[in-house]
Amino acid sequence: MLSLSQLQRITIHSQQIQETHLLLTPQQQHYLLRVLRLRDSDKFIVMDGMGKWWLAQLAGEQGEVLEPLEVKTELPVAITLMMALPKGNGFDEIVRYCTELGVTCIAPILSDRTLLNPSPQKLERWQRIASEAAEQSERAVVPTILQPVAFNTAIKENIATHRYICEARGNYPHLQQIINKTANDIIIAIGPEGGWTNQEIEIAKESGFQPISLGRRILRAVTAPIVAISLIAANFE
Amino acid sequence: MLSLSQLQRITIHSQQIQETHLLLTPQQQHYLLRVLRLRDSDKFIVMDGMGKWWLAQLAGEQGEVLEPLEVKTELPVAITLMMALPKGNGFDEIVRYCTELGVTCIAPILSDRTLLNPSPQKLERWQRIASEAAEQSERAVVPTILQPVAFNTAIKENIATHRYICEARGNYPHLQQIINKTANDIIIAIGPEGGWTNQEIEIAKESGFQPISLGRRILRAVTAPIVAISLIAANFE
Repeated sequence: MLSLSQLQRITIHSQQIQETHLLLTPQQQHYLLRVLRLRDSDKFIVMDGMGKWWLAQLAGEQGEVLEPLEVKTELPVAITLMMALPKGNGFDEIVRYCTELGVTCIAPILSDRTLLNPSPQKLERWQRIASEAAEQSERAVVPTILQPVAFNTAIKENIATHRYICEARGNYPHLQQIINKTANDIIIAIGPEGGWTNQEIEIAKESGFQPISLGRRILRAVTAPIVAISLIAANFE
Repeated sequence: MLSLSQLQRITIHSQQIQETHLLLTPQQQHYLLRVLRLRDSDKFIVMDGMGKWWLAQLAGEQGEVLEPLEVKTELPVAITLMMALPKGNGFDEIVRYCTELGVTCIAPILSDRTLLNPSPQKLERWQRIASEAAEQSERAVVPTILQPVAFNTAIKENIATHRYICEARGNYPHLQQIINKTANDIIIAIGPEGGWTNQEIEIAKESGFQPISLGRRILRAVTAPIVAISLIAANFE
């Protein structure tokens, strides 16, 4: 049997597949031919980042699609992480870990206590990290990273049916105790260093977000989303 | 009410407390007086790393113990993480995250696929990271970091009653489904990049370790222990 884990993976747009032909971009050609040094007929995996994988092989400077692959690495729930931008490069780590853990969408948030306004290059960087992490963890889906928006905008535009907001210092129920295992979509909002302001918590509650705890210890802004996505994933697998 | 979260914390040995006197080391004096610039009668917290906290105040170049503090940030279960050393500085991150999450003891393991033999300075570095992370997360206990030992030695010397070994690619039950919530102590063994060898899994099984999964996605060696400790902690809080 072919071991998928031993094959290299690249992410493509579904339009790059035309019947059995796989039209590679110059960057993908460079990666496969020069970086990975694949040769004619060498196999690799292409993923469209929307849940589909195919086995492909190199044919000259283009690819040939051999067969669709069944992947069982995706969760039966769509998880959106609404994450206040932490200081430094913390968001890079959050994107990497949460992609591995099965997140569907990451929405960076500018909250009252957010210190920095990210440069436009950041979004591209986070998308690249998500793509790499999805490939490494053998996911079929590359999470969507949204443009950073203000807290008030994000909190009112959400459409998930199950909405939670994490708050370290209130006396709220633990996420583990209240996860609804029949949910199709979950949104979880996590604050920056120093947490949300009281006003933000109130606005979230008015928009149907239930405040929850992730345990009694004080977690760093980078750690909290990893814990939250781990718990949700484990309850759905 | 006094907010503990606003006070600085230092870790001491319990012998440093003599009746109500707190004998500070030169390093602690430097930290409190020069780095934090505390002045006479300023309050701070001392923790002995064994579960006890005290409120203290500065008195000249020494401290004065005011009262013991009750902390509720520790889990009702002792968790030992037996972790094969990953490549690079991955172990630093593992110590930091797992300390935040409530681990009791971390045992670095030299496994068949471990690439490096750590320098003696590493243990000191990991202990410093654990100490910092325990303070930041407001834990009462600083996890113990053991000397790195070979897999065979570690697996046979363990004494915990509930023993699990994580394996990504077998068809094993998910940790979430088999955590025994009445356990007093749990040991969980996690492999390096590339996982355990078949032989290591067999030896662990013979020593009473149950193989478990952390979900269907392939996690990095750094991510797996964070997920495992998150799940155990959530099931005990």
